[in-house]
Amino acid sequence: MALSASPTAARPQAAARLQGVLSPVITPFKADLSPDAERFVRHCKWLLKSGCTGLAVFGTNSEANSLSLEERLSLLAALIHAGVPGAALMPGTGHCALPATVRLTANAVKLGCAGVLMLPPFYYKSVSDEGLYRYFSEVIERVGDERLRIYLYHIPPVSQVPITLKLIGRLLAKYPGIVAGAKDSSGDWSNTKAMLDEFGKSGFDVFPGSETFLLEGLRNGGVGCISATANVNPGPIDQVFRKWRSGEADKLQAGISATRKIMQKYPMIPALKSVVAHFGNDAEWRRVRPPLVELDKEQEAALIPELKAAGFAMPGLAG
Amino acid sequence: MALSASPTAARPQAAARLQGVLSPVITPFKADLSPDAERFVRHCKWLLKSGCTGLAVFGTNSEANSLSLEERLSLLAALIHAGVPGAALMPGTGHCALPATVRLTANAVKLGCAGVLMLPPFYYKSVSDEGLYRYFSEVIERVGDERLRIYLYHIPPVSQVPITLKLIGRLLAKYPGIVAGAKDSSGDWSNTKAMLDEFGKSGFDVFPGSETFLLEGLRNGGVGCISATANVNPGPIDQVFRKWRSGEADKLQAGISATRKIMQKYPMIPALKSVVAHFGNDAEWRRVRPPLVELDKEQEAALIPELKAAGFAMPGLAG
Repeated sequence: MALSASPTAARPQAAARLQGVLSPVITPFKADLSPDAERFVRHCKWLLKSGCTGLAVFGTNSEANSLSLEERLSLLAALIHAGVPGAALMPGTGHCALPATVRLTANAVKLGCAGVLMLPPFYYKSVSDEGLYRYFSEVIERVGDERLRIYLYHIPPVSQVPITLKLIGRLLAKYPGIVAGAKDSSGDWSNTKAMLDEFGKSGFDVFPGSETFLLEGLRNGGVGCISATANVNPGPIDQVFRKWRSGEADKLQAGISATRKIMQKYPMIPALKSVVAHFGNDAEWRRVRPPLVELDKEQEAALIPELKAAGFAMPGLAG
Repeated sequence: MALSASPTAARPQAAARLQGVLSPVITPFKADLSPDAERFVRHCKWLLKSGCTGLAVFGTNSEANSLSLEERLSLLAALIHAGVPGAALMPGTGHCALPATVRLTANAVKLGCAGVLMLPPFYYKSVSDEGLYRYFSEVIERVGDERLRIYLYHIPPVSQVPITLKLIGRLLAKYPGIVAGAKDSSGDWSNTKAMLDEFGKSGFDVFPGSETFLLEGLRNGGVGCISATANVNPGPIDQVFRKWRSGEADKLQAGISATRKIMQKYPMIPALKSVVAHFGNDAEWRRVRPPLVELDKEQEAALIPELKAAGFAMPGLAG
């Protein structure tokens, strides 16, 4: 497979393509609301030994858009410094401002990250595919590195700016290899299916944005999932990925879907943090940055027992 | 009027409250898409001598969210350096990331800006008033300067995150004087009227986000308007502000509303830039940053003659 429209053998090599279960890692904050690099690294390491093949740090569930650029750069540096391999990383780098996206993306490539997960610029609504094409093209040209692997981040319920199939087709034709795939967080299986059908055989790797669609995705050419709930349930989700061709697959899928359903009754980000705080016996994890708000005591008092009753556990977290 | 809940005479004085016509100044870009400080300063000076009492730089129409923090800081410094008084400035400083908002806001206060126009954090949707209250409170506490004047920016069609009356009431009770007013770009007169009725007498200055509501706003306690079209039509809009109590007021209002209606047939930001390019005889102005796209030739070929036929002019611009 060509890595780009004009590959050059002498250029530095890109990391292998990520597959499997990726966690959009939640970001811990200290009492003064500054990012807590130590807890962040610890959680990342737990995820990698508990079933995640990769870490989509700085995603929606990471409160990445609530972080300054400097905070993101510093957390990523802390991860690399702590020995987390770039080959396991797919940091979010999409920002409303082109220079910010270029800066974050170039830094990720320089650090050897396997790819970047790129939101479209999301302030202006109803923008044209032409405008988005120019945006992504400009980022690619400015980063100017053949090792760059972009995963387009389609999350219309939050960004309100969709990545259409037409836009993907145009970008893929111009930058094959560089445009490496997508995370589809539309929650709409028919859209994920259309992405898979149209581009799955062109070296375009599709990750559903929820493990609810993991098995169905794999059966249709998907390569894994990038899911909020992978922050707390990585092992069982990974089991579906590893055994999707086996007779157990449907039963395993039903199990992780049931856990997801419990989590979805609550605001996802504070719920994930409450779960990590509870099962890791570390109340510091509960904090979120405004405009988000922590779960209240009543919500926690309902969520935790319901998870326990379903047999949920986070082995090795509190160790 | 108390400037804050606990005013201290010895503290530095805040600039006088802005009133009248403010322009959310469009941002010119060079061929490499970097901000063009020289053209920016020139346009700002033209606006101030042509009817604008103030400049709401770095608003929606300024493509501010397409600029990096450094680009905003540098353009603001260029304005001040060029002799534009801080007392005429209301820069936009609201960002998704709390530290970014604090940095931009503290800088604006330090430079003597009359106020700041603050978007809510706009990535997460359906956030609670409690979360937004914490966000704005945290910004105010961190900036920690009694000269700070915040104008809350309500623009749900774009931000998708509204500033509710309840939120305003809560912030105003806690930070009177600091929370100085709002720009209402909802396009919904009943909301503007409700803001005026509920808070207009508490030292809360309401600017409709379009000159369409300028006269009606003034008649109900409003203090002016902050409008995209003030970039191209500042003189006639200022006339409505100056003569709103006169017998001419309704006729003057009808004139500016007619111009606005022509502009609104086109994507506003590229249309403003095309108009400045045409009437200023300076094609460089047409450029926008992705994800926006310039007007095409057909759109320009329709817009410009229609404006001319309506008697539209930009006196002194091409000089």
